[in-house]
Amino acid sequence: MNASETIAAIRADARFAKAAETLAAEHDRTVADVITLTEIPSPPFGEEQRAGAYLAMLRAHGLEEVEQDEIGNVMGIRRGFGNGEILVVAAHLDTVFPAGTDVRVRREGTKLFAPGVSDDTWSLAVNLAFIRALDAAGIRTRQDLLFVGDVGEEGLGDLRGVRHLFAQSRHRPRIQAFLTVDSPQVEHIVSGGVGSRRYRVTFRGPGGHSYAAFGLVNPMYAMAEAARGLAAVEVPKFPPTTHCVSVVSGGTSINAIANAVTIEVDLRSASAVELERLDQRFLAIVDDAVATENAARSTASGVITAEIARVGDRPAGETPAGSPIRDIAAAAVAAEGYAPQFEFSSTDANVPMSLGIPALKVGAGGRGGRAHSLEEWLDVEPKESLRGMRTTLAAILALAGMEGIG
Amino acid sequence: MNASETIAAIRADARFAKAAETLAAEHDRTVADVITLTEIPSPPFGEEQRAGAYLAMLRAHGLEEVEQDEIGNVMGIRRGFGNGEILVVAAHLDTVFPAGTDVRVRREGTKLFAPGVSDDTWSLAVNLAFIRALDAAGIRTRQDLLFVGDVGEEGLGDLRGVRHLFAQSRHRPRIQAFLTVDSPQVEHIVSGGVGSRRYRVTFRGPGGHSYAAFGLVNPMYAMAEAARGLAAVEVPKFPPTTHCVSVVSGGTSINAIANAVTIEVDLRSASAVELERLDQRFLAIVDDAVATENAARSTASGVITAEIARVGDRPAGETPAGSPIRDIAAAAVAAEGYAPQFEFSSTDANVPMSLGIPALKVGAGGRGGRAHSLEEWLDVEPKESLRGMRTTLAAILALAGMEGIG
Repeated sequence: MNASETIAAIRADARFAKAAETLAAEHDRTVADVITLTEIPSPPFGEEQRAGAYLAMLRAHGLEEVEQDEIGNVMGIRRGFGNGEILVVAAHLDTVFPAGTDVRVRREGTKLFAPGVSDDTWSLAVNLAFIRALDAAGIRTRQDLLFVGDVGEEGLGDLRGVRHLFAQSRHRPRIQAFLTVDSPQVEHIVSGGVGSRRYRVTFRGPGGHSYAAFGLVNPMYAMAEAARGLAAVEVPKFPPTTHCVSVVSGGTSINAIANAVTIEVDLRSASAVELERLDQRFLAIVDDAVATENAARSTASGVITAEIARVGDRPAGETPAGSPIRDIAAAAVAAEGYAPQFEFSSTDANVPMSLGIPALKVGAGGRGGRAHSLEEWLDVEPKESLRGMRTTLAAILALAGMEGIG
Repeated sequence: MNASETIAAIRADARFAKAAETLAAEHDRTVADVITLTEIPSPPFGEEQRAGAYLAMLRAHGLEEVEQDEIGNVMGIRRGFGNGEILVVAAHLDTVFPAGTDVRVRREGTKLFAPGVSDDTWSLAVNLAFIRALDAAGIRTRQDLLFVGDVGEEGLGDLRGVRHLFAQSRHRPRIQAFLTVDSPQVEHIVSGGVGSRRYRVTFRGPGGHSYAAFGLVNPMYAMAEAARGLAAVEVPKFPPTTHCVSVVSGGTSINAIANAVTIEVDLRSASAVELERLDQRFLAIVDDAVATENAARSTASGVITAEIARVGDRPAGETPAGSPIRDIAAAAVAAEGYAPQFEFSSTDANVPMSLGIPALKVGAGGRGGRAHSLEEWLDVEPKESLRGMRTTLAAILALAGMEGIG
């Protein structure tokens, strides 16, 4: 059977119908769960409280080997009937919002408003709904399903949760594929993992009085040279590759040559090769900028140096066209009448993609928007939500091997 | 008589000897005055309290027309016997130190330590000592002496006190020459007034996500282009002309194109012509940088603009070699055995210099150092202090026309 036939067979099965009925019957509980979880703050590097609550939920859902790992991820296994191969079904625990953000949920009709409610708290609740639906329908899978609530997906979290899972977990050798359920819309499938390298570069120099010490090297100009250098670097449109000098600060007084100027730089590419090339180019640009400034003005009181700190490193990767996991995800999306779109983004799936493990970001169902803003919202209107949930549940079953299908 | 002969005649006069004796006899009082005044905080734009105290001192010294003007300067006249022409003898009331700085004076032997003690509080006290010495010796001058304690000499004060004196004072038409007594060392005579133009330039753009909005114009690169442009501007060594991009800030997040980047820029020259040329050049560089960035990347979401605020404007000027006031000051300095040096700096004398009025910065006597730092000090050791005071007093008398000399 090809992917479409497999999805069709699953959707035609009475057990899948029972699972879908359970999702519908339990919808209010799923909504209650997302509200509960959303109102537990989970700022970057502060996911402990939500992780603890989710760990208890995973345990209450009857999973095996429920645990929290060293980095803070929580997980548990829904055992399959096969040889112990694993499909990971993940959602991330962290939000972009700092500690102290008001995370109370405001409801207007079927819409929930709260920071983090759709990115990615909804998926945490929906993954629990999947477990209940599978149990209620008595559905078994060949592969074990490893449900994970992971830390560190956002920003400077640098994918540390999933990175740790693939670097350290005892489950690692048995993981065959990886789905991260992230944000509601199911038609947006991320198959290209945009990697990034992030730098904080501090240009230092001797400083001095703006008038009396005129002619000395100035770290401001080395910074400007580096910024101009990076701005001029041409990058391919496909695979998408980008660069940005994002933040700058330096100097103390209008009548002084600065001692130090710092920039923060974001380099991204969907191609590991292009990202590495851009990275090397940027580092050379910084070296050249320092040398140019040291040659342009006097170094009698000291030279310009650059201190380069890598503050982010997300691997690039791609689950290429023709991969069975892509065909299955697309078939599941199409079967519910959506038009599947494969996209590039930076998600937890970057890590397995970079390791050559089939991986996608899929959706949890429903509609949401304004992610990363205080106006973030999630529409849990049942019809659309359940349509999306069925989509991703069918994909999970096709990937993990539903008993009696195919 | 040439300048040296005039100075020699003054120094040989019995009345000058009596004045010098008075300075010596009253030295402890002069030291007491500098301590009293130093311990009255006088931060930028907060000179009121010290101005009030100094006003009372000027009045107690028997000056006429003692007053505070609209901008905050305090002043009074020691009447001459001539036609009402005026020599201004000024010192500045303000210090660089912000409100809340501990301004208590610590004394070690003949050294006084306190913020502002030598720049320029000592000169305020010494100018009072000059009045007492002239009175005690019965010395009359042809010109009126207008003693001024002025506001706004430091930093963003932008010379507003003396600027006001020359723009608004009823005395203005009668002012023939201007001495600002500023800092102890008398051998350093400032005859070149370094002017400055100071700008705060904010480059603005539409901003956007560093990855998703890649290709949009970035104010960071317009800033960098402008900074590099200014750095490359060649300026004359004489008259000394300098430029500096001093302070930079902008951007909010490593994964965002900045909405705004701000630089602070200091342009200086001892030549009004060169300063104007540099100023126009800088403004053109900013325009060009904006245009370059708008041409280099997409303006689909908005263009780069530059908001230019002039935050400082000190006029340049020079009292040229050959001016009688320079010859007299040099002769007075040399007569006490010092080697006079004519220097470029930015002082209250910039304003009259820029108007073509003979003006110099001269010293109050004694030794001081670490001005503008919390370790600022003044050495009031009598021998050296009195030697310096006699120097400047002789110069004042030569300039204002001592009765019976020449």
